[in-house]
Amino acid sequence: MTRALHVSAELHAEIASFYARHMRAMDEGRVQDWTGGFTDDGVFITNARPAPQIGRAAITAGAGATAANLLSNNVLRRHCLATLNIRPQPDGVILASSYAIIVRTPPGGPTAVEFLCTCDDELVRHDGQLLIRHRRVQRDDLVFAAPTIRPPNGSW
Amino acid sequence: MTRALHVSAELHAEIASFYARHMRAMDEGRVQDWTGGFTDDGVFITNARPAPQIGRAAITAGAGATAANLLSNNVLRRHCLATLNIRPQPDGVILASSYAIIVRTPPGGPTAVEFLCTCDDELVRHDGQLLIRHRRVQRDDLVFAAPTIRPPNGSW
Amino acid sequence: MTRALHVSAELHAEIASFYARHMRAMDEGRVQDWTGGFTDDGVFITNARPAPQIGRAAITAGAGATAANLLSNNVLRRHCLATLNIRPQPDGVILASSYAIIVRTPPGGPTAVEFLCTCDDELVRHDGQLLIRHRRVQRDDLVFAAPTIRPPNGSW
Repeated sequence: MTRALHVSAELHAEIASFYARHMRAMDEGRVQDWTGGFTDDGVFITNARPAPQIGRAAITAGAGATAANLLSNNVLRRHCLATLNIRPQPDGVILASSYAIIVRTPPGGPTAVEFLCTCDDELVRHDGQLLIRHRRVQRDDLVFAAPTIRPPNGSW
Repeated sequence: MTRALHVSAELHAEIASFYARHMRAMDEGRVQDWTGGFTDDGVFITNARPAPQIGRAAITAGAGATAANLLSNNVLRRHCLATLNIRPQPDGVILASSYAIIVRTPPGGPTAVEFLCTCDDELVRHDGQLLIRHRRVQRDDLVFAAPTIRPPNGSW
Repeated sequence: MTRALHVSAELHAEIASFYARHMRAMDEGRVQDWTGGFTDDGVFITNARPAPQIGRAAITAGAGATAANLLSNNVLRRHCLATLNIRPQPDGVILASSYAIIVRTPPGGPTAVEFLCTCDDELVRHDGQLLIRHRRVQRDDLVFAAPTIRPPNGSW
């Protein structure tokens, strides 16, 4: 495991707040707000999709389809973040790992856990704002692993 | 959306701790400790009740009835807070939004998610202590929305 | 209730991070990493076991058996920490209470809440590192209470 740098309280609070806004945006169907949390060339990889989504436009298209589907069925889905671990790297990238319990409620209930993901993000700072440049989401209920992709030139 | 002020790490930790004590008090049936988290004229609005509860006495009565009912059936109910977002306002009020996963266990189990709420609080500081002056709780499994009420004189 | 000292943001972030690493280690079957979070003479008490586990070797044996059992069945189990309350004591010990929602996924799903525990830890600092010297875990679905044990010499 890469040796992580100290996590200041300021960074911890900032990242916890970032995720709270980010998750809430998705859960409320504000797809543009949610997608705004990624870099322009962000990568989103999940074992729930056959191929990585590369770039904000592709990520927006994927998230928008999911949000529209939930909305059309009046299903509420909440991403409840827990067990956040932050590991700043010497090169300025911040690795952030968490669990997301996805809690689903159809109209009138009942409410239930739909699935749980591990979320491994690489965060970078652009103009002072935290942004996700690489996200790997692994649903525990899907038995195959999410692929790992790295940029061909090793720039990150 | 109102532009929020910076959230210091100190404020983030203070509010996370406030909620941990507050939720735990309710879950352990310590109704007075829980109610102590509201201002004297606090307002509690939820789509699980037909009318707002206004003032600490009314809030205590409502919470006490719920706690007594659970206690008499030996049911444990836990409010698990997640995805806390804090937005300090220029006038000193602090908006705090969160999810609460309510996890229920009857005697001997099984344990299950009972429901999920969004909780939108307005916090103020009295003699250094954070207090809730306005709470709006929305259960995802109840299809109607919680009413929104504002004080008639606009004092807050 | 013992009067607790102020919880600094630095301490809050440090403890939240400690638990995130600690829980993740267990959930990924890294038993030695998980056990490394206890003092050599740590005590682990739970109402899921008939007797306390005293000392790191005993704790390791118990956790290893649980991890091996899950692994052999390809079951994923996630400890999702919520509602963390920290109470530093005048003698330097830090009391930390939390909920852990245990979310279980067999191969291919479905995912469900398996049980919920309250976790009451006593943390101490050794060479700058936080360590658990006493843990009391109470599963809500088991109706008897975890025993309370104290050292015979009252050293802690």
